[in-house]
Amino acid sequence: MTTTDARERLVAAAQELFWAQGVGATSPRQVLAVSGVGQGSLYHHFPTKHDLAAAAVHATTAAGLDAAHRDLDASGSAVERLVRYLERPRPALAGCKVGRLVSDQAVMDDDVLAAEVRAYFRGLVDLAAAVLTEDGLPDDAARDRAHAAVAIVQGGYVLARALDDPDAMTAAARGFVALLDPGPTTPEDA
Amino acid sequence: MTTTDARERLVAAAQELFWAQGVGATSPRQVLAVSGVGQGSLYHHFPTKHDLAAAAVHATTAAGLDAAHRDLDASGSAVERLVRYLERPRPALAGCKVGRLVSDQAVMDDDVLAAEVRAYFRGLVDLAAAVLTEDGLPDDAARDRAHAAVAIVQGGYVLARALDDPDAMTAAARGFVALLDPGPTTPEDA
Repeated sequence: MTTTDARERLVAAAQELFWAQGVGATSPRQVLAVSGVGQGSLYHHFPTKHDLAAAAVHATTAAGLDAAHRDLDASGSAVERLVRYLERPRPALAGCKVGRLVSDQAVMDDDVLAAEVRAYFRGLVDLAAAVLTEDGLPDDAARDRAHAAVAIVQGGYVLARALDDPDAMTAAARGFVALLDPGPTTPEDA
Repeated sequence: MTTTDARERLVAAAQELFWAQGVGATSPRQVLAVSGVGQGSLYHHFPTKHDLAAAAVHATTAAGLDAAHRDLDASGSAVERLVRYLERPRPALAGCKVGRLVSDQAVMDDDVLAAEVRAYFRGLVDLAAAVLTEDGLPDDAARDRAHAAVAIVQGGYVLARALDDPDAMTAAARGFVALLDPGPTTPEDA
């Protein structure tokens, strides 16, 4: 395999293990086993465990922001784009790859990793708020609504895992979307 | 101290330690140290570590449901009561005492503890849904909106911790409340 392949496989293996079991519980030995890459290659690309963790956390947050951009930069009204973001199919029971890092003490106690997580959520809120202001919502209201949209997704993951029921996440999104876009016939608005 | 005092102090100490550091990381020795109770008393009330964990997790979920009942059973319209629940001051950066249990593998891998957490969230959603149906919202819509309200709180905690900013949680609640109760002058509704 090329050196680029090896690096990518190491990062991908670390991302999967971080998602499944957390950063603190993941050893370089496990990453090697999952990646199928040789030990020399690991130390060549990532001299320390922290270098590997930083690269994997960055890859996860970058992929998350890319996915949000695909939903939120598409065509349509602000509400349509926000609904696309909210209703994107997600692995409810496995949890958010970034959200799970927030409850990982090994991440939040590390300045570099915590900054990655913070930048992800700040980027996500900024992106959603920008979409909402485009559609004429005042800045403050747009920022509040953007926080609410991101919270619905994160809280949806928590609920689904707590109830062991992926439908809890889709119900939360549906409840929020119904408020964003009440449609033509909602008795409660009569 | 009386035997009731000792039991209560042991449970309260376990609750605090579970909140701060998780169930898996908390030892009976730490609970003894924080409670100031003697070792004999610990084994008298809680023969196993699991007995203590079950009592402490139950105390936490019961207190959480009590607080939700205080907000949601009070007087006022469904929206007013839901807003009271959503806007109750919360320790955003410390996290939800129950919500944090959801990301604690030692809890979710244990049938008894996971059932406590599940019953809490099921009770919370049922309670909020009942309030919303009282005000005339159809059952399905009420359950979706109840899931959304609980998700806003849980997601607000995740956002606040991720951004290291308690205002992120209040912004999410405010964004949701503005949709529930748009008030007289909202340009986006014009």
